Amino acid sequence: MLLCDPDRLFPTEQKSRGLARALYESVADLPIISPHGHCDPRWFAENDRFPNPAELFVIPDHYVFRMLVSQGVSMADLGIPRVDVGSVHVDPREIWRRFADGYHLFRGTPSSMWLDHSFQFVFGVNEVLGPENADAIYDDIESKLSTPEYRPRALFDTFNIELLATTEGALDDLRWHRKIRDSDWNGPVVTTYRPDAVVDPDFEGFSDNVVRFGEITGEDTQSWAGYLNAHRKRRAYFKTFGATASDHGHLTARTENLNEGDAEALFAKALTGTISAEEADAFRGQMLTEMARMSLEDGLTLQIHAGSRRNHSAQIFTQFGRDKGFDIPGPTDYVASLRPMLDAVGMEQNLTIILFTLDETVYSRELAPLAGAYPALKLGPPWWFFDSYEGIKRFREATTETCGFYNTVGFNDDTRAFCSIPARHDVSRRSDSAYLATLVATGRLREAEAFEVAQDLAYGLAKSAYNL
Amino acid sequence: MLLCDPDRLFPTEQKSRGLARALYESVADLPIISPHGHCDPRWFAENDRFPNPAELFVIPDHYVFRMLVSQGVSMADLGIPRVDVGSVHVDPREIWRRFADGYHLFRGTPSSMWLDHSFQFVFGVNEVLGPENADAIYDDIESKLSTPEYRPRALFDTFNIELLATTEGALDDLRWHRKIRDSDWNGPVVTTYRPDAVVDPDFEGFSDNVVRFGEITGEDTQSWAGYLNAHRKRRAYFKTFGATASDHGHLTARTENLNEGDAEALFAKALTGTISAEEADAFRGQMLTEMARMSLEDGLTLQIHAGSRRNHSAQIFTQFGRDKGFDIPGPTDYVASLRPMLDAVGMEQNLTIILFTLDETVYSRELAPLAGAYPALKLGPPWWFFDSYEGIKRFREATTETCGFYNTVGFNDDTRAFCSIPARHDVSRRSDSAYLATLVATGRLREAEAFEVAQDLAYGLAKSAYNL
Amino acid sequence: MLLCDPDRLFPTEQKSRGLARALYESVADLPIISPHGHCDPRWFAENDRFPNPAELFVIPDHYVFRMLVSQGVSMADLGIPRVDVGSVHVDPREIWRRFADGYHLFRGTPSSMWLDHSFQFVFGVNEVLGPENADAIYDDIESKLSTPEYRPRALFDTFNIELLATTEGALDDLRWHRKIRDSDWNGPVVTTYRPDAVVDPDFEGFSDNVVRFGEITGEDTQSWAGYLNAHRKRRAYFKTFGATASDHGHLTARTENLNEGDAEALFAKALTGTISAEEADAFRGQMLTEMARMSLEDGLTLQIHAGSRRNHSAQIFTQFGRDKGFDIPGPTDYVASLRPMLDAVGMEQNLTIILFTLDETVYSRELAPLAGAYPALKLGPPWWFFDSYEGIKRFREATTETCGFYNTVGFNDDTRAFCSIPARHDVSRRSDSAYLATLVATGRLREAEAFEVAQDLAYGLAKSAYNL
Repeated sequence: MLLCDPDRLFPTEQKSRGLARALYESVADLPIISPHGHCDPRWFAENDRFPNPAELFVIPDHYVFRMLVSQGVSMADLGIPRVDVGSVHVDPREIWRRFADGYHLFRGTPSSMWLDHSFQFVFGVNEVLGPENADAIYDDIESKLSTPEYRPRALFDTFNIELLATTEGALDDLRWHRKIRDSDWNGPVVTTYRPDAVVDPDFEGFSDNVVRFGEITGEDTQSWAGYLNAHRKRRAYFKTFGATASDHGHLTARTENLNEGDAEALFAKALTGTISAEEADAFRGQMLTEMARMSLEDGLTLQIHAGSRRNHSAQIFTQFGRDKGFDIPGPTDYVASLRPMLDAVGMEQNLTIILFTLDETVYSRELAPLAGAYPALKLGPPWWFFDSYEGIKRFREATTETCGFYNTVGFNDDTRAFCSIPARHDVSRRSDSAYLATLVATGRLREAEAFEVAQDLAYGLAKSAYNL
Repeated sequence: MLLCDPDRLFPTEQKSRGLARALYESVADLPIISPHGHCDPRWFAENDRFPNPAELFVIPDHYVFRMLVSQGVSMADLGIPRVDVGSVHVDPREIWRRFADGYHLFRGTPSSMWLDHSFQFVFGVNEVLGPENADAIYDDIESKLSTPEYRPRALFDTFNIELLATTEGALDDLRWHRKIRDSDWNGPVVTTYRPDAVVDPDFEGFSDNVVRFGEITGEDTQSWAGYLNAHRKRRAYFKTFGATASDHGHLTARTENLNEGDAEALFAKALTGTISAEEADAFRGQMLTEMARMSLEDGLTLQIHAGSRRNHSAQIFTQFGRDKGFDIPGPTDYVASLRPMLDAVGMEQNLTIILFTLDETVYSRELAPLAGAYPALKLGPPWWFFDSYEGIKRFREATTETCGFYNTVGFNDDTRAFCSIPARHDVSRRSDSAYLATLVATGRLREAEAFEVAQDLAYGLAKSAYNL
Repeated sequence: MLLCDPDRLFPTEQKSRGLARALYESVADLPIISPHGHCDPRWFAENDRFPNPAELFVIPDHYVFRMLVSQGVSMADLGIPRVDVGSVHVDPREIWRRFADGYHLFRGTPSSMWLDHSFQFVFGVNEVLGPENADAIYDDIESKLSTPEYRPRALFDTFNIELLATTEGALDDLRWHRKIRDSDWNGPVVTTYRPDAVVDPDFEGFSDNVVRFGEITGEDTQSWAGYLNAHRKRRAYFKTFGATASDHGHLTARTENLNEGDAEALFAKALTGTISAEEADAFRGQMLTEMARMSLEDGLTLQIHAGSRRNHSAQIFTQFGRDKGFDIPGPTDYVASLRPMLDAVGMEQNLTIILFTLDETVYSRELAPLAGAYPALKLGPPWWFFDSYEGIKRFREATTETCGFYNTVGFNDDTRAFCSIPARHDVSRRSDSAYLATLVATGRLREAEAFEVAQDLAYGLAKSAYNL
C-alpha cells in the first residue's frame, strides 16, 4: 500500500481537485528553499550516519514525544536526556516500540503526515507503523541508515535542497559551518544570527556573555557604542558564512524607540544585574529596533518569533531542559508593541522584517493590516502548531484578503527534524495549491494568475524575502 | 414531509457524503453516554408526566426563550417565573403560540435542529411549526404527553440512554437519586459533585453553607483540615450514587498552589466574610487544586467550565434569577491560570482534568497545546453556544492537528432540555462523521482508522474519560 | 474576456452551486439600500464629472493605495495630498500607471473583485489591468467620464440605488444635502448624525466645537442640560435631511451610565480642558448612553463602530493626515464595555443599537450572545477588512448559530469609493447566497426558507434596522 494518498490535501470537488493537482505538479519538483530552521550543522560538517531510527524520528522531535507523553508515556522511557541527573541509556528499539504503540495518537495531525511521508518517500516503508510491525520497520530503517545514501549530505541532495539555513547564537564560533565551507561539499548550508544570549538580560549568564562577546569581536562591550559595534562586527562575520537574516525569539513583540541616553542607561543596568523585569523587557524591545537599524545598514532580514510561553512545566524544565514540547502560546499584541520600531523604520523600503505568531487571532486583526500598509513588514508562514493543512488554510483565508500574497514570504520548515523537511514543504505546496484552486473555482483568481502565484509561494517569495 | 433531512450535516461532495453516511451509520445506534448534564433527577424519581408542551420545550430552555426575547417578546409572556414578585400564570398554549410565531428566528441555529429532531422523532410531527399549525401541534404533543410512553423513564429507555449524569450541589441530600435507586427502575441516572456553594466565598450564604456542610458530614468545617475532610466524605457519598466526576463553574480558569498555611488563612477569611475580591478568587483557584488532589485519591474526573460572565443583565437577574440566557462569555486565559495546578498535578497519569471553554480563540492557541503535552489534561467537547455543527467543526479543525483525537473526551449534551438529548448526540455524531470523512477524502486519515475513531468519539472516549 | 466569473463566490459542488445561483438571482436585481457610508454629498449636489480615473479609483481609496505603499510605492507618487507641506501635482496618468504596475498585488483581495466589477460593469473594460494596457484603459475610462451617463447622479440611477446615506459631523451645515433637496433630483441621499467632534474631549478643538455647537442650535452648550438639548435639536435637524441613524467611532466600546451630577462634572472638565485621559474616555462612554436615550425619544438608530487604532504611523499622519490606510484594529471588549449602556436601555424593544467590530474573535464569543439576548442590540455586517467573501463567511458561520439571521441588519457598504457600491453589494448578496445554499445542502435550512432569508438579508433587514 501507499502510505500517502497521491491527492492528499486537495479539495474534494473534482474540478477544483484537478486544478489543485495541476498547480501542485507545477511546483512539486522545485528545489527546496529552507531559509529558517534548526538543523544541526554538525550533521553536514561531519557527515556521520544517523545513529538509529529512534534518534532520527523520536528523540529530537518534540511534536512526537510530547504527544506520547500527553497519553501517559514517560519522557525518560522515550530516551529524552535528563539534565538534572545522569541520563540512563534506553534501548532505541524499546523507544521505537513505544512510539509504534502510540502511533494512532497522531491520527489527524501533521506529524502523521510528515512521518508517513518520510517513511514512504525516504525509507520506502509501505505499511502503517504499529505494534505488530514495529521491529520490522525499525530494522528496515536501521539497515538503510548504515548505507552511504542515507548520510546527511546524501539526503540533503536527495531532498533537492537548494539552500538550508541553520540558526546559531552570537557567541557561536561557527566551527561546523567553517568545516562545511572547508570541505569539498558545498550544500549550501548557511547560518542565521540569533543574538538572544547577548540581547536578553534575563538569559543565563548575560553579563558573562557580553564580556565574551567583546573578546571575540575586539570591541569594548561594556560601553553601549562598543556593544552595538560588536553586533555589527558579528553580523558581518555571520554574513561571511552565508547569513542573510537574524532571528529573535521574544515572549512578546514589544519594541522600543528610546533615545541613546536611555538605551545606554538600560544597558548599563543590564550589565550590572540591577535591571528590573520591566526594564529588561524594554531593553529587549530596544534591541529589536537596534537590530532593524543594523539591517538597514547590512541588509540582513529581521525575523521576529514572538508569543511562546516557554517551559510551562517547571518539572519538565528542571528534569529535561528547554524545547521539550511544553512551550505554550498565549495572546500576543502586535499593534501597540511594534509601533515604536515602526515609527523608527516601518516606512523603509529597503528593509524586511518578518513577523511570526502563535496567536492566530492576530492574523486578520493585526498582522495583515500592518503588513498591508508598512513597506518594511512581511508575514512569515504559519509557525509551529500551525504548520499544517488547517493552519495554512486559516492563515491564507485570514490574511490574503487584507494583505494579498505579496506581503507574505513563502514557506519556512523551521524544524530540527531533518527527514521532515521534504514532507513539510510538500504539505505547504499542496495546501497552497488547494487554496489557489479554490480561489479560481470560486472566481476570485484567474487560472493563469494562480500558476504564477503558486510559483511565488513555493519558491520566489522566499528568495526575495531572504535576499537569496 | 420529513422535518429532518436524512443526510443533514454531511459534506456536499458525493464521495465524502457517502463516507460520512457510512461512518454515521456505524455509530448512529450506539447507546447514549451523557456524562455531564443538568436534567432534573426528580423526573426519573417520580416519573410524573411532563405538564405541557410549553413546559417541555420553552420555559426550561434558555436557548429558546432568550432568542424570542432578543426579538421583543417579554420574558413574562413566555411564562418565565419572576423571582422578585409573584409569578402570574400564563396559559401554556399562549406561550406556545408566541414560540410558534417566532419559530423562523431559529433558522440556521442548532436549536432549530434540536427542536425539529424532537418534533419528528419523539413526537411524530411532520410540519414546520408556525403560527398556522401552532394549536394543532400543541394538541398533538399534549395528547402524547398524557400517555405512558412519554413518561420520563419511558423516554429515557426510548432514547437508548446507557448512562445519564445529573449535577447536584455539595449540600444536596440526593433524595431523588435515592428514590431512583430504591425504585424498581435503574436508569442509570448518576450524580456529579458540584461544590460551588461551599467553595466560592462570593456564593450567597457561603458561611452558612460551610456550617451546614459540617453538619451533614460530621466534620469540623470551621478548620481547614476538617473542611477538606468534609469534601472527601461528601465526594465519597456522591460516589455511592454513581458519581464519577466533579464539576466546577468559575468565571476564570485561575488556579493556585498555595502552601497549607496560606490556604488555611484564606479559608479563615472566607468564613468570616473578611476576604477581599482578589483573595476570594485565589481561594477558588486553590480549591481547584485541592479538588484535583482529591481526584488523585478517589478517582473522580475533574471538570472545569470556565469563562461565562453570568447574569449580564442586572434587570433580568433581579426579576428572573439565574440561567436565563443572559450569560455572556469573555476572553479566558488558560496558560497562566492553570499553571499552578499543573505544577502540582499536571504530570500525573492517573488523573483526568477536562477543560471546557466559551472562548474559541484558546482552542488552537492554548488548550490543544496544553492537552497535547500534560498527561492529566483532556479537552471537553464544544460547550454551550458551540454545541453545534459549526462549533464542532471549528473545535476539531483547531484542536486535532495539535492534540489529536485521544486528548478529547467524546460528547457531552450538558442540557436541561431532556428531549434534546438524542438530537444533540445525533448532531455530534453527524458532525464528527463529516469531519472524519473529510479527513479521509483529503488523505489525512485512512478509512479504516476513521471507523475506529468514529466509535471512540461517539462512545469509547466518554467511557474512559469519565471512568464508566 | 469577462473580468468577472458569472458564478463567482458560489460553492464548487454543483448542486449547492445551482441553488446558490438561484438564490442570488432572486435578489440580484433588488435595489441597493446603502444605509451607512462615506460618499461625498457634494458629488450629487453639484453633479460635476469625476476628474479622472486616478481620482476615481486610486486617490480616495485607502484599500488601494495602502497596498501599493506596502510594496514600496510612495504615498506622494500616488497623488495622496500632503497636509504638512504643499502638495505637488502628480500626473493622474502616472498614478494610474503605478496602480497598473501593482495590480497583481490585489490578487485574492476583495479590492480586486470590486475593481474588476467596476471595470467590467460600469466601464465595459474587458482586459485585466496591467502595465501593457494601462494607458488604453485609462483613456477608455477617461473618455466615458466625460459623458453625461457617468455623472454622479446618472451613475446613482444606473446603480439602482434606492437610498444612500452619507455621514456628516454635528457642525456640518448640510449645504450639499440642502442643495440636493432643492434640486430637481431626489436621490434619495440622506445624512447621518456623527457627533464625534462635539462628543470626544480629545477631538481637535473640542471646546471651540462645543461653542459653535451652541451657536448653531441656540442652546447654552456650556451647561450640561443645554449641551444635551443641542444634540436633541441637531438630531432633529439632521432628521429633516433624512437621517435615520447616528454613528459613533470610538477606540473602544466603553459605555457608562453615570448619574447626572457625575456626567455634568465630566462635561465641565472637558470644556475647560482639565479632563484626564481616563475621564475623557468615561465621558465618551457616557455620551453613547445619552445618545441611546435620545434614540429612544427620536427613533434614530445608533451605530457603534469600535476598535480601530487610528493613525498608527505617526509619519503618515503628520504628512498625509487621517484615513490613509494606517488604521489598525486591536482587541475589543464588548461584554464589560457595553454593560452600563445595556443596563440603562438594553431591554428596550423600540431601540436599535447596531454593533460593528474589527475584532472577529468577538463574533461568537461576545456579539452573537449579546445580540441573541438583548432586544435593543443588532449586529452590523462585517466591517472594513472583513467586507469580503471570507469575512462574510466567517461572520455568518460564527454568529448565525447563536443569534440567527434576524438579529443582523443586512449589508452596509461603508465606502467612499462610489463605483464600488454595486460591486460590494453584489459580493454580499453572492456570499450570503453561498452560505444559505450550503445550509440547505447540509440540511440546516429548508429551500423555501432560504429564499425568504435571502430577500431579508439583501433588502428587508436593512430597511427595518434603519427605519427606512
